[in-house]
Amino acid sequence: MNASETAADVRGRIRRGELRGPTAGLAPHFVQTNLVVIPRDWADEFALLTKRNPVPCPLVEQLPAGEFEPACAVDADLRTDIGAYRIWREGVCVEQCADVRALWHADLVAFLIGCSFSFDRALTEAGLPPRHVVLGSNVPMYVSSIPLAPAGRFGGTWVVSMRPYRAADVERVREVTRPFTDCHGEPVAWGDPATLGIRDLAHPDEGDAVPLESSDVPVFWGCGVTPQRSLLRAGVPFAITHEPGHMFVTDRNERTSSR
Amino acid sequence: MNASETAADVRGRIRRGELRGPTAGLAPHFVQTNLVVIPRDWADEFALLTKRNPVPCPLVEQLPAGEFEPACAVDADLRTDIGAYRIWREGVCVEQCADVRALWHADLVAFLIGCSFSFDRALTEAGLPPRHVVLGSNVPMYVSSIPLAPAGRFGGTWVVSMRPYRAADVERVREVTRPFTDCHGEPVAWGDPATLGIRDLAHPDEGDAVPLESSDVPVFWGCGVTPQRSLLRAGVPFAITHEPGHMFVTDRNERTSSR
Repeated sequence: MNASETAADVRGRIRRGELRGPTAGLAPHFVQTNLVVIPRDWADEFALLTKRNPVPCPLVEQLPAGEFEPACAVDADLRTDIGAYRIWREGVCVEQCADVRALWHADLVAFLIGCSFSFDRALTEAGLPPRHVVLGSNVPMYVSSIPLAPAGRFGGTWVVSMRPYRAADVERVREVTRPFTDCHGEPVAWGDPATLGIRDLAHPDEGDAVPLESSDVPVFWGCGVTPQRSLLRAGVPFAITHEPGHMFVTDRNERTSSR
Repeated sequence: MNASETAADVRGRIRRGELRGPTAGLAPHFVQTNLVVIPRDWADEFALLTKRNPVPCPLVEQLPAGEFEPACAVDADLRTDIGAYRIWREGVCVEQCADVRALWHADLVAFLIGCSFSFDRALTEAGLPPRHVVLGSNVPMYVSSIPLAPAGRFGGTWVVSMRPYRAADVERVREVTRPFTDCHGEPVAWGDPATLGIRDLAHPDEGDAVPLESSDVPVFWGCGVTPQRSLLRAGVPFAITHEPGHMFVTDRNERTSSR
């Protein structure tokens, strides 16, 4: 990583095809986001879902129908500035690609939703590196039993990410992540996974399992996979999302942004 | 009730001591709110609780420290314009009164939080009167197992209110209440109470039980008692709230307001 690289630098490298990999660690201190693009007739209900569930679905920006130049990133193009996209039809991922200009049309609405990369770095800088960062793996994610507040055709339950910490460190972990309101903020729960309907930490629904030491408690955060699962469950006929790990890098500073 | 009475009329009658009873049905179509007043050093975390949990804790307005004239109601005074207040010290209700001017000071922060009176009327007008309205009783409320997204010292679980409806009416009930985003909006769940950790509908934690017919399903909404329970649980040393049913009547139109 290059600590002086700006968000615009990263977007330019991606657009020119010079960068195709995951964006974790790039353009430090700029907010990175999940992308969700859906047909206009689903947009109002999806926007309401994010308003009613801001912790798992932190809305950074909703664009007007057809538009692909977000306000949160100067001279950006959401059709080209993400390294890898997924195309969904009838709930099935039918294609992965690096440019969605040919698929874009006036009836599509784009949403940018915060992700946890920002607070993972903050935790590391505070001397509390998440285990998946230490191990170089993906964060483990679990489908929980926490109900989303439904919004029209959208509902389901929260997906949560998990980072193990010593019980004595939990309050500090909460403090470090609390300011990141664009990126899920502080944990939603810690301790017994059964209270969230999670049976087996060794078998996450997404990502990679991480080992827990005997002094560890699992700490759970809202996860940006939640809105993606909710839209697939709702039967949205067409959607474009980013490939996990390949986020959209905004010009927004992660410490000064607010919702 | 007088259908032409404005919110300012109701506040004036309360301030002059001419009205002391519950406010349900008064000043139709104006948003009524719960009141929470807490010391300044708890205010940021309580504001964060409302931002992270907008369905059970819909924030209508937070006033600057010491102020008692809200922006949402012209010429109002939060110290005199509610018919009955509760004074809390160390989690215990120590006093009920109709005027809190003597207790007010510069370090208190007031929050106004939406309540369900607005959508109860909308349901009635749509031909779907809530059973507690038909029976003239209080809505039944239950402590659920849904975790609040914690905010610093504030946490706990949602309190939900319940209205029984025929299964065939649930979608219409959702549509009618969806626009009331200042007032909990559409239901959070319907059907089996056990999924919300509720064991016995016949014994609500607050309010009055209502009978369910064999064709009914219980329908659950976020409830404004949630933030009050959360602050008592957190150990806030001093608080002023309204007496349940005796709400603050704002000038905000319930159908045009937004968060």
